[in-house]
Amino acid sequence: MTLSRRALLLGGAGLAGASVGSYALTRATAATDRSPAGTASTVEFFGDHQAGIVTPAPDRLYFAAFDVITDDVHALTAMLRAWTAAAAQLTMGAEVGEFGAVGGPLPAPPEDTGEALGLGAANLTLTFGVGASLFTDTDGNDRFGLAAKRPPALIDLPHFPGDLLDPARSGGDLCVQACADDPQVAFHAVRNLARLGFGVVSMRWSQLGFGRTSSTSQAQATPRNLFGFKDGTENLKAEEAAELERHVWAQAEDGSDWMAGGSYLSARRINMRIETWDRTSLGEQEAIIGRAKGSGAPLSGGDEHAAPDFAMQGSDGMPIVAVDSHVRLAHPGRHGGSRMLRRGYNFTDGSDGLGRMEAGLFFLAFVRDPATQYVPVQLLLAQQDALSEYLQHTASAIFAVAPGVPFAAGPDAMVFASLFGDR
Amino acid sequence: MTLSRRALLLGGAGLAGASVGSYALTRATAATDRSPAGTASTVEFFGDHQAGIVTPAPDRLYFAAFDVITDDVHALTAMLRAWTAAAAQLTMGAEVGEFGAVGGPLPAPPEDTGEALGLGAANLTLTFGVGASLFTDTDGNDRFGLAAKRPPALIDLPHFPGDLLDPARSGGDLCVQACADDPQVAFHAVRNLARLGFGVVSMRWSQLGFGRTSSTSQAQATPRNLFGFKDGTENLKAEEAAELERHVWAQAEDGSDWMAGGSYLSARRINMRIETWDRTSLGEQEAIIGRAKGSGAPLSGGDEHAAPDFAMQGSDGMPIVAVDSHVRLAHPGRHGGSRMLRRGYNFTDGSDGLGRMEAGLFFLAFVRDPATQYVPVQLLLAQQDALSEYLQHTASAIFAVAPGVPFAAGPDAMVFASLFGDR
Repeated sequence: MTLSRRALLLGGAGLAGASVGSYALTRATAATDRSPAGTASTVEFFGDHQAGIVTPAPDRLYFAAFDVITDDVHALTAMLRAWTAAAAQLTMGAEVGEFGAVGGPLPAPPEDTGEALGLGAANLTLTFGVGASLFTDTDGNDRFGLAAKRPPALIDLPHFPGDLLDPARSGGDLCVQACADDPQVAFHAVRNLARLGFGVVSMRWSQLGFGRTSSTSQAQATPRNLFGFKDGTENLKAEEAAELERHVWAQAEDGSDWMAGGSYLSARRINMRIETWDRTSLGEQEAIIGRAKGSGAPLSGGDEHAAPDFAMQGSDGMPIVAVDSHVRLAHPGRHGGSRMLRRGYNFTDGSDGLGRMEAGLFFLAFVRDPATQYVPVQLLLAQQDALSEYLQHTASAIFAVAPGVPFAAGPDAMVFASLFGDR
Repeated sequence: MTLSRRALLLGGAGLAGASVGSYALTRATAATDRSPAGTASTVEFFGDHQAGIVTPAPDRLYFAAFDVITDDVHALTAMLRAWTAAAAQLTMGAEVGEFGAVGGPLPAPPEDTGEALGLGAANLTLTFGVGASLFTDTDGNDRFGLAAKRPPALIDLPHFPGDLLDPARSGGDLCVQACADDPQVAFHAVRNLARLGFGVVSMRWSQLGFGRTSSTSQAQATPRNLFGFKDGTENLKAEEAAELERHVWAQAEDGSDWMAGGSYLSARRINMRIETWDRTSLGEQEAIIGRAKGSGAPLSGGDEHAAPDFAMQGSDGMPIVAVDSHVRLAHPGRHGGSRMLRRGYNFTDGSDGLGRMEAGLFFLAFVRDPATQYVPVQLLLAQQDALSEYLQHTASAIFAVAPGVPFAAGPDAMVFASLFGDR
């Protein structure tokens, strides 16, 4: 079923493309594939859920948010159909459009921009979301007749203590999360989607992530964030199907039919005070996190995956895992068992003009209900976490991430079909 | 000789480190190495020339420029010695300092920041240069007694037509070019050098590059820039020893004894007008570059590596490789046979607030003499190249890249030893 769907999309394009391109190369067949496992490194685009959520996170990210600049809902859905077809091709390691053909009989730009030729699929995933401003714009207008369909779970995030948010890097009507083994493949995908959206959307902000900070599969080793600590040890994993249903996937009974099988994404750009942290002693760093820096084990003992013993006391009668430590305050046990699927990336955007690195964590977390699974955790961290002294949240966005595009969706397949219906 | 040098530096550190670290992991022995070829992916740091020039360019870059904020030459040379020892360890896939030990008997920060544990050496190279402002600062002071040693080849670049340079991203007293298979390894190296330089240097600017745009070895396939074209087809290659002596390596007779075996680096941040380019027809794109987009072959025929035939005329009597095409104007034949070793990277730094991607080429080129090898080429391109319409140079710097640190340099090895002498 997977193969026939792909054959439909790609085979037809291939036949058409063969006759027109002076530029008819495909990444999937080029000889210079740089991805670790070659052309086999593809992730299925179609399915009940979008890829890029429980998919094992590859090492590189390019994330973009867009403003919709048209009031014509048909222009928007036409673009979403074009994005869907393009995403199906890009995630196969193919180019956008008719294999690099030029479009139409008149001199025209190539349908693909070309910088990813030869790079393979590189495990590319493309994951699409909508922001609250798509439903009701900033002037309160229901421009697409969607206001009644805003999911109750797609809340406006509150202001958290310490937030210093840049509006130009926050929000957005649509988002695209591109993850891949090769950043050039991720960049290429977003750029070509932006191009297909010319006149319909305008890129609002984007963020390059250079290293994943969470494992989303038991097969992955736990990576390190820019504090040098293992991050995401207790993250939700792809293998925990029942937990994913409970904590990640929106359900029909959650109040938004069209979102069933989707999820909600909190995106937070968190600058780290790198230079201050780097002058903090190892003992203090470990006390702040509540884990050993080398092994990632809780300070109460055991290995990385041992449960922290929050009751254990040191010789001074104080808890060994400090009351203001990150692991204690963020622990699911502190939040009624609530868990998030974190999928963030390390970033750097140069320096700040005062000699300090502009770097940190681009936090991405997928949850079923941000109001109960993200907000209380971030509020507690912002108020009490000793780590907050080394952090500054500089951008924020929240998106409703649609359910997947079914294999059987046909040639007019569209992500967000359940939202827009037959428009 | 190589091994004994490494054993000296690393063995001693390892012995010391074993007794102190609660955090005594090494990247070289960790199980989660992500680099393509594992721990074997190391590039020799010591040698007649610095690594990272003719070394086959890996895919990722982190580049940083620093201002020296002390007037104490001994503080500066002490830092350069610390940088040299750290670079020898980092490029082996080890951590900075005593294998992650904490420093000294009092509570102290760990000597390494830790985010590259488990990532392998990833073919890391670290390449060091000095800017003209190190010799004479912006107030005209000879603060380190080095003014007489400024190499004649280390010129101030002229203003080129169309330049719109951001001073905050330009210049610098020192530079570090970190290239690696893994951007987190490159970032980690620069961050730890910055940390060792606390109180001596301040990071002035930095640039992340996500994809190489040149091949520097015949073993490498030609990569593509963000115009989607193969770039650097005719680049100087590591295998061309005689050409490198002629075009890249500074010679004793060039007027600066201490620079013999070094090179000069032109760094230019070149923004591309991505959205405009992407609306240009394939025919026009190819006419502007002078090459076919798919194959990279000159429009006059042959394969990618065929010499362009600039005399060949089309049926209209005009040259097939247009007079204002990039390949014609940049060709060594137009510049008295002069060649550069290009080693640039694609970059993106988000969006510009008007919906346009902030992206382009971070151009890096190593030459023996910028005045004759870089300036005339860039002047001609800025004046006549059809491609210039799609480009904006937004930052500029030029550095004297020191000769290599010899294998036999001993435990006080220092990059720039030939410049500072015994200070």
